[in-house]
Amino acid sequence: MSDILGDMRRTHHCWELGAADIGKEVVLMGWVQRRRDHGGVIFVDLRDREGITQVVFNPEFTPDVHEKAHVIRNEFVIGVRGKVGARPDGMINPNLKTGEIEVMVTELKLLNEAVTPPFMIEDRVDVSENIRLKHRHLDLRRPALQKNIITRHKASVAVRNFLNDNGFLDLETPVLTRSTPEGARDYLVPSRVNPGKFYALPQSPQLFKQLFMIAGFDRYYQIVRCFRDEDLRAERQPEFTQIDMELAFVGEEDIMAIAEGMMVALFKEIRGIDLQTPFQRLPYDEAIARYGLDKPDIRFGLELKDMSDIVAGSDFKVFASVVKSGGIVKAINVKGGVGFSRKELDDLTDFVAIYKAKGMAWIKVKEDGTWQSPIAKFFSDGEKQAMIERLGIEPGDLILFGADTPKVVNESLGNLRNHLARKLDLIREDEFAFTWVTHFPMFEYDETEKRYQALHHPFTAPLDTDYGKLTDDPLAAKSRAYDMVLNGFEIGGGSIRVHQIELQKKIFAALGMEQAEYEEKFGFLLSALESGAPPHGGIAFGFDRLVMLLCGESSIRDIIAFPKTQKASCLMTNAPAEVDKSQLDELALKIRKISLDS
Amino acid sequence: MSDILGDMRRTHHCWELGAADIGKEVVLMGWVQRRRDHGGVIFVDLRDREGITQVVFNPEFTPDVHEKAHVIRNEFVIGVRGKVGARPDGMINPNLKTGEIEVMVTELKLLNEAVTPPFMIEDRVDVSENIRLKHRHLDLRRPALQKNIITRHKASVAVRNFLNDNGFLDLETPVLTRSTPEGARDYLVPSRVNPGKFYALPQSPQLFKQLFMIAGFDRYYQIVRCFRDEDLRAERQPEFTQIDMELAFVGEEDIMAIAEGMMVALFKEIRGIDLQTPFQRLPYDEAIARYGLDKPDIRFGLELKDMSDIVAGSDFKVFASVVKSGGIVKAINVKGGVGFSRKELDDLTDFVAIYKAKGMAWIKVKEDGTWQSPIAKFFSDGEKQAMIERLGIEPGDLILFGADTPKVVNESLGNLRNHLARKLDLIREDEFAFTWVTHFPMFEYDETEKRYQALHHPFTAPLDTDYGKLTDDPLAAKSRAYDMVLNGFEIGGGSIRVHQIELQKKIFAALGMEQAEYEEKFGFLLSALESGAPPHGGIAFGFDRLVMLLCGESSIRDIIAFPKTQKASCLMTNAPAEVDKSQLDELALKIRKISLDS
Repeated sequence: MSDILGDMRRTHHCWELGAADIGKEVVLMGWVQRRRDHGGVIFVDLRDREGITQVVFNPEFTPDVHEKAHVIRNEFVIGVRGKVGARPDGMINPNLKTGEIEVMVTELKLLNEAVTPPFMIEDRVDVSENIRLKHRHLDLRRPALQKNIITRHKASVAVRNFLNDNGFLDLETPVLTRSTPEGARDYLVPSRVNPGKFYALPQSPQLFKQLFMIAGFDRYYQIVRCFRDEDLRAERQPEFTQIDMELAFVGEEDIMAIAEGMMVALFKEIRGIDLQTPFQRLPYDEAIARYGLDKPDIRFGLELKDMSDIVAGSDFKVFASVVKSGGIVKAINVKGGVGFSRKELDDLTDFVAIYKAKGMAWIKVKEDGTWQSPIAKFFSDGEKQAMIERLGIEPGDLILFGADTPKVVNESLGNLRNHLARKLDLIREDEFAFTWVTHFPMFEYDETEKRYQALHHPFTAPLDTDYGKLTDDPLAAKSRAYDMVLNGFEIGGGSIRVHQIELQKKIFAALGMEQAEYEEKFGFLLSALESGAPPHGGIAFGFDRLVMLLCGESSIRDIIAFPKTQKASCLMTNAPAEVDKSQLDELALKIRKISLDS
Repeated sequence: MSDILGDMRRTHHCWELGAADIGKEVVLMGWVQRRRDHGGVIFVDLRDREGITQVVFNPEFTPDVHEKAHVIRNEFVIGVRGKVGARPDGMINPNLKTGEIEVMVTELKLLNEAVTPPFMIEDRVDVSENIRLKHRHLDLRRPALQKNIITRHKASVAVRNFLNDNGFLDLETPVLTRSTPEGARDYLVPSRVNPGKFYALPQSPQLFKQLFMIAGFDRYYQIVRCFRDEDLRAERQPEFTQIDMELAFVGEEDIMAIAEGMMVALFKEIRGIDLQTPFQRLPYDEAIARYGLDKPDIRFGLELKDMSDIVAGSDFKVFASVVKSGGIVKAINVKGGVGFSRKELDDLTDFVAIYKAKGMAWIKVKEDGTWQSPIAKFFSDGEKQAMIERLGIEPGDLILFGADTPKVVNESLGNLRNHLARKLDLIREDEFAFTWVTHFPMFEYDETEKRYQALHHPFTAPLDTDYGKLTDDPLAAKSRAYDMVLNGFEIGGGSIRVHQIELQKKIFAALGMEQAEYEEKFGFLLSALESGAPPHGGIAFGFDRLVMLLCGESSIRDIIAFPKTQKASCLMTNAPAEVDKSQLDELALKIRKISLDS
């Protein structure tokens, strides 16, 4: 072969050689991490995806090669042939696996040059994320990102192995599919062959996986790309990856057991941790009561206590009137929080304001047991005693109150609880605390559209005991949905599905759909449900977020090779971009004038 | 759990029980394949994805359950608990793995009913493909499709295992990316956040996988969905799946060896066949010379011979003038074809007309050695003797000629060769004959656009020896591209890529791009090429077609769970569909009026 490699082929990676290899002739290829000249000898740290090996150009033994090596700069790509030797005593690096050896180069191939990179290829990189995203091919060379992306690969292998071993079939579903309402906005794809019509990119393969169950495939999975055209927040990407699965002839406990088994396998493989199962099960109502949120971080206490009954008759009119008008009063006991400054309390009040809380009452319990508080004077001794018992109040405590609608109190105190745990350093970062949240409500009421909406999706089964509530008291109906929560993140969610056609129609009706509407949108599902649909259910995991937590990262952009910005742009390729008018003509589309204030 | 399954859980699949299980209590769940009533006893063939087990409702032993079983019809979903028993002597079915046993049912759960399906759930189904596609959830219950889809799963597992074991990383690339010209039309996705701009769905992750190599990931693979908005032919789908891979620090032989290893693993796993490697290598020019096509089916002979030199000076003016004007004359010797009727010869002439051949000359060689032919009289004895030698002519042969431009002759005779092999039954259907086609031309000339186009793509490296030809004689420049061909299908294709920035610019220039154009479209690639790009190359396999061949099917729609029609529609979900005006408004788009004749 007359190409640049000639007959030179790698024999080893750059993290493979050790003292046992001394004397061997080897060929390594990679990038120049660092070059040092010392006493006329050129030392190069040669890097590949596996690690670093020191290679040496010594003018005494190989003057020609040494001469040629003078051009080498950082990030040049080279191939070297040479003999593995022991490093001189003083140069052994016990921190490196390859730190006992070096390769004395006898042949050098300069495979490519490199301009000086806009930032150093190392973890402590001091440039904006936008620069990193623009030069993503360089950013991806940094050891931390290399490790993240490789961990992502290993995680997907571990998941697949587990599911393959448990009778799941990896089955593909269409990406060009039909727009159906599943809560978020669809990405649309105009059809050229059917002008004026559009495909939608899937928000999840929900109906296809149900059809797989109805077709008899029994256990399905897919690690699959999904799409949501949402207004982007920090932790959202327009496209994201799901571990999606569905099982026939099962109830929720069967699915939770499989999902737990998958997590055990995954965390063992990636983190070497033995997770304990079964994970805790927490009914939705209890999660809200104790933690304020349906994705509680259970690594720490600071639980919420409902004080409504105690304060309902008190002289503190704010609390009393909230309870009277259907609201609630809840409190958190911050152990040892008595020392919080006025400024700190103001900051906490600002924090809960994000969640629409109009204020935050507090009580400091001094070492002598007396209460320092703007509101303490309004409570009777009996009310105080009831508070002490319910909150376990002791000297040194700080009690924080929320009083508003249940939604505002729970959201604000739930998030305040997480905020306090970080502030007080109550969280062990290396702990992985899983919980299942179960028995979600079927519906929530959409005040804007004046109708019920499915809390999960319209294919979620209600509890068998709650069929009657679907029409009589929709907000009280509980579903057979479950979320897996890890360290305060919802990492997975699923449900037992509706497999009976009449029940499915009843749910569509409860959601305010006329028969014509649901027949048009979901006729194929109804037709499938009446042709022998087995009981079935499933779950989907957000793979990006899961890998983020496995890697100990705080942004999913650090575990996606080519992520998009919050404006849904790729800074490297400049996607999305303008297209030729001829392309739009073929699609029978016109771009409307955008007014500047739109 | 108070759901329909209660505490009943499957203990076995329906293809698991045998004589060794007699006496066990088991629970099976599945679909009623067939119900028979015989002497008051109800026999049901219960089906799941694994197979069939006979379950028996006997009024003598379990009158209640037997009574309940009366409602059972085909495709009903049931769960049964019962005891495994030996079938009576006369009822043993040696063709079934479970044919020695039956399950005497003691408990029946009716899990769902089913309306009468529009077609029988069996392989010999006598309905149009459109009906099958509309009711795909039922079509997918047919044993042949179940087997195909499960084989597809197994093939993907085998491929992943092989690649994981060989140091490849499964790395994800964006689906919402930038429109770049790669030969076919892009599917576009309007951006709402960036109005007037569009993403494109990838035709392949080509540039991203090259960037992975430049970022140092060394070996990449992905089983990935790709998209082409082409005018659909029988074997095309708007979305298709590729086994995509890329390797750094390699030449073409390294990649071919890995690809062969993957095929060995795949065919062993799926078909139990031991493929012999290395596969034959066939340079493009030789493939065209001998077979007329760049994807030759090498399972049979019927090779093309160039007769141009022999007939150039003959009295047959048609041949002589074709050669004079730069065309060629080629022939196929159809052994034993002397018996072809006039009608058959006319049909062959019609066949080559599809490929723009204006006619087809022929010679029949009778048993006595005389030539029967409209054109034989024009050739001298010397010319005849030369033909006899080159074509190995013997009594009983039929010689077929093509005379036209090289393109027309090769395409028409190449396809005629395949056609004849099927007609003459020369093909062993269970034979898998692989070949590599190598040394493709870099460019072809586009007569419409009056410019050179890349035969593969603009990132394909030329042979090191052909750099000069890029500017001096572009059509003579050969590339480092290679296709893997199986039984006349191109199942994979790839190349060594350009890793030097100056060479890449030279190729863009040869393709008629100005600097401003290629900087705008491919600036990120050029920037990557100058930042330390290693020598690299890769290959991509059409997974759909590969699975089709592994399954012995002739349509890729039979190995895709939810395929689209030739009009790119999904008959089940009715995608693509019209969308709400509000959705288009958000995207700042308008549908242009479609005139009826457009």
